[in-house]
Amino acid sequence: MAADATQYFALSSPFAMKRGGALTGARVAYETWGTLNAARDNAVLILTGLSPGAHAAANAVDPSPGWWEEMLGPGKPIDSNRWFVICVNSLGSCKGSTGPASIDPTTGKVYKLTFPELALEDAANAAFELVRGLGIERLACLLGNSMGGMSALGYLLLHPGSVRAHISISTAPQAQPFAIAIRSLQREAIRLDPNWNEGNYDAAHYPETGMSIARKLGVITYRSAMEWVGRFARIRLDHDQREDEPFGAEFAVESYLVGHAKKFVRSFDPNCYLYLSRASDWFDIAEYDPQPHGHGHVAAALARIDVERALVIGVSTDILFPLSQQQEIADGLRVAGANVDFVPLDSPQGHDAFLVDIPRFGAAIARFLAKL
Amino acid sequence: MAADATQYFALSSPFAMKRGGALTGARVAYETWGTLNAARDNAVLILTGLSPGAHAAANAVDPSPGWWEEMLGPGKPIDSNRWFVICVNSLGSCKGSTGPASIDPTTGKVYKLTFPELALEDAANAAFELVRGLGIERLACLLGNSMGGMSALGYLLLHPGSVRAHISISTAPQAQPFAIAIRSLQREAIRLDPNWNEGNYDAAHYPETGMSIARKLGVITYRSAMEWVGRFARIRLDHDQREDEPFGAEFAVESYLVGHAKKFVRSFDPNCYLYLSRASDWFDIAEYDPQPHGHGHVAAALARIDVERALVIGVSTDILFPLSQQQEIADGLRVAGANVDFVPLDSPQGHDAFLVDIPRFGAAIARFLAKL
Repeated sequence: MAADATQYFALSSPFAMKRGGALTGARVAYETWGTLNAARDNAVLILTGLSPGAHAAANAVDPSPGWWEEMLGPGKPIDSNRWFVICVNSLGSCKGSTGPASIDPTTGKVYKLTFPELALEDAANAAFELVRGLGIERLACLLGNSMGGMSALGYLLLHPGSVRAHISISTAPQAQPFAIAIRSLQREAIRLDPNWNEGNYDAAHYPETGMSIARKLGVITYRSAMEWVGRFARIRLDHDQREDEPFGAEFAVESYLVGHAKKFVRSFDPNCYLYLSRASDWFDIAEYDPQPHGHGHVAAALARIDVERALVIGVSTDILFPLSQQQEIADGLRVAGANVDFVPLDSPQGHDAFLVDIPRFGAAIARFLAKL
Repeated sequence: MAADATQYFALSSPFAMKRGGALTGARVAYETWGTLNAARDNAVLILTGLSPGAHAAANAVDPSPGWWEEMLGPGKPIDSNRWFVICVNSLGSCKGSTGPASIDPTTGKVYKLTFPELALEDAANAAFELVRGLGIERLACLLGNSMGGMSALGYLLLHPGSVRAHISISTAPQAQPFAIAIRSLQREAIRLDPNWNEGNYDAAHYPETGMSIARKLGVITYRSAMEWVGRFARIRLDHDQREDEPFGAEFAVESYLVGHAKKFVRSFDPNCYLYLSRASDWFDIAEYDPQPHGHGHVAAALARIDVERALVIGVSTDILFPLSQQQEIADGLRVAGANVDFVPLDSPQGHDAFLVDIPRFGAAIARFLAKL
């Protein structure tokens, strides 16, 4: 078994939360690749989507493959021979950072639903403290994908001047109603599972059904119909692979969903999932419009962001974070004065393309980083 | 309260089912508008989507509005002053036709899961018997939308020469994996509800949770992200409208889903839903390829269909029955020798557009029918 490369950074205590309340003795988990140079100006910070931990790729301590293995490492698109790369597990997650599944040091019990309301800005602030704690005044690049891209926009707005270049991947400046509807239904599936029990489950009474439905719905919306036509078509399972129950799985695509759900259900804490999912719905940079007339405007908020260069990548088959939202970010950052590369991709894999279409995404990222 | 305009037609008994078994004393429910002319050549048959009943529009007996009220009636796009219009409730449904919620006359008990496996071809054959029973040798037009469009393709393949013109709306020549995945998850939500109890629920122990999740997922995939940006944006519920529970509904779009689910949950039988949903997954006209080399081909099956004219309508924002599948139907019917109008629409409402974008759909249908 590989050694654990996770490091931990203690956040300020109390750590004030955006929507009220504060955490005592909280921490974030992170991993690093490469070496911080003497000028401390070669740091790249990665903020992740909802489910990954900090182990984005193999490193010296933990050579097991990470969730972005082909993207990050020596000679790879995010080249750790040049960059000092940090990947942080989001505050509120269960992969080492403090979240609803952690012990509340003030009570000695697991937070569960006593964890304060979580906003992605809290995750951004925690990541910012880590970066400062590592002695880095200004990131060479802040990269965020999916939920992490939202956190990254929060980071940029809350900490102006702290980032030189930005890479925004398949994310949103605000949650749109379709994405809210999907996430709301995922949360509902968990909440309605009697084993969720208002957050008071344990390993023996675990909301497995709710988590499974939530994950399957996630996988459906993370990929694309087009990809699946080519991949699964109408292939049926062999009879001995089928579930021996009424209306059980019969098609290969159903079995694929079952496989994904099984991997996820016990590896991600349900309460953490609920907190992070809701935080994504709440996210809306229009709140940072300096002159909100009634409702704020996304464009006005984006116009406040101070980065020299940006790379904005989106995928035409992404139904959860549509290309129109990536265009919106690119346009806004241009108005803000950044030199922006907007790269709309035709990857067939939908929202998840950044995880699997490494040829397209890697090329765009390598090209951008080479210019810095 | 309006009188019930539903009429019933007794199917042949036994009524043989495609996948085996037979129904005894089965019937289909239907309604009609207009008058069958002396030549019996002005009949239009409508095959519906999964959930509607036969009451497509107000008529003399039942003036209450139907599910396609603006489309059908005197002077409307499907003009009952000219056409004798029949709308039939699908075999296997619970809106008057025989299905899993009906009494099995051979046992005196509700079928539940003893209902034989249902295919959409069974629904097509039942509709065909009704048409013949009404003394109609050849339909002027067979119209099917969504699931009903699949049944209509089955009807055309199984009963060649029985239809002069065809209108195909937002449907599929075969279920694709994305649609299968969505429907599989809907079925799973019902099946995993302990109250489903392998089909043995009653009003007091009813799979309300599962049905609610299934319906919400349906509504999400029946509409489009684009429509919802304009309709709901990030509008929040007033505080007194919010659910007083952790992670309860907060956004208008969530409340919209709740409203749809509430209307549906008790008005559609869960077992019927499961049967019709699975029948949709099974549907694949490639089975009718006369020379199936390994797998049959959709195009080869479509090429066998014998109609003079066809109108094929699809919507670019439909994620469940994508425009590419409507194009496939149009192309195939052209190869078959039909004079085909293919009308791709930019309606923002997604799959449900045919129910709500009456200006666009009505114009296309009226134009087509005027040519017959």
